Amino acid sequence: MKPVTHFSDGIRILGVDPGSVTTGFGLIESRNGKASYVASGCLRTGDGELPSRLKVVFDGLNKVIGEFRPTELAIENVFVAKNARSAMVLGQARGAAICAAVANDLIVYEYAATEIKKTVVGRGRADKTQVQHMMVALLGLDQTPQSDAADALACAVCHLTRSHGLAAYGRTNLKGGWG
Amino acid sequence: MKPVTHFSDGIRILGVDPGSVTTGFGLIESRNGKASYVASGCLRTGDGELPSRLKVVFDGLNKVIGEFRPTELAIENVFVAKNARSAMVLGQARGAAICAAVANDLIVYEYAATEIKKTVVGRGRADKTQVQHMMVALLGLDQTPQSDAADALACAVCHLTRSHGLAAYGRTNLKGGWG
Repeated sequence: MKPVTHFSDGIRILGVDPGSVTTGFGLIESRNGKASYVASGCLRTGDGELPSRLKVVFDGLNKVIGEFRPTELAIENVFVAKNARSAMVLGQARGAAICAAVANDLIVYEYAATEIKKTVVGRGRADKTQVQHMMVALLGLDQTPQSDAADALACAVCHLTRSHGLAAYGRTNLKGGWG
Repeated sequence: MKPVTHFSDGIRILGVDPGSVTTGFGLIESRNGKASYVASGCLRTGDGELPSRLKVVFDGLNKVIGEFRPTELAIENVFVAKNARSAMVLGQARGAAICAAVANDLIVYEYAATEIKKTVVGRGRADKTQVQHMMVALLGLDQTPQSDAADALACAVCHLTRSHGLAAYGRTNLKGGWG
């Protein structure tokens, strides 16, 4: 087999972990076959009326997209919820996040939470601390990101490797981040 | 008691009935104490991927808002769904509709479906054809609006009377619409 010499470049992925209380976001980019951390954080929707909480998600992600100019957006796909009411609440937050992408002409990619965890931890049922740990290791972070931000970064990493292959991902060096 | 001589005027309400397949919209306005029909229709989201379906709702309502310049948005609040999965799907459509309002700085008002039906038909469990019939009668329409459009118009009528009172609504004349 020929070695892989061609890969997608200049990819900047915004990963989003939507939630009814907190929506995590995380940006990574791949340049010259090397992936690196860009930014991450959480949007806290507070406990106001639903429209104002969705506004926090929509406006917040709009601002993140405007500031960091991602080329693609990857979002966790949620199949299960405790009950219909919590599914409705979560669905609305997810709809707001996707609208922020749509409003900025970003293509949206969806990944199941189990697929994301399997990609970054190796197990579909990995717990949140394991995802946080792997984000610190894979991205060479100085600090442990908040759990929802880590999940969003994991979603971005999952999309990078699934859609653009390992050539865009670079060699993994657990001690020094991606190199 | 003094007769009511003061009322809110120049109110144009966009009612929205969000759905996973079809999102209905309906506009009414109240001017000089007289309510009238402006426009109504349906956004059909098709059977594509979720982001493209939410884009139809978000972009479609954005266009409606841009064209008809409503001053307020009223949306059906859904408390029940068959199961968590359908609640999630419906929640996402609802989130997209609310984001279109938020993106246009419209204040969003929420009404339970039972409250809307009770207001326009007199019974919280009225069926769809009764809502359609009442919209034709109350708004003096020449044609029966599609069911989701009728529900959206009913939501707008509910908001007008609940938030702005009967003075903004005008006298009801079942034969000739609102006069």
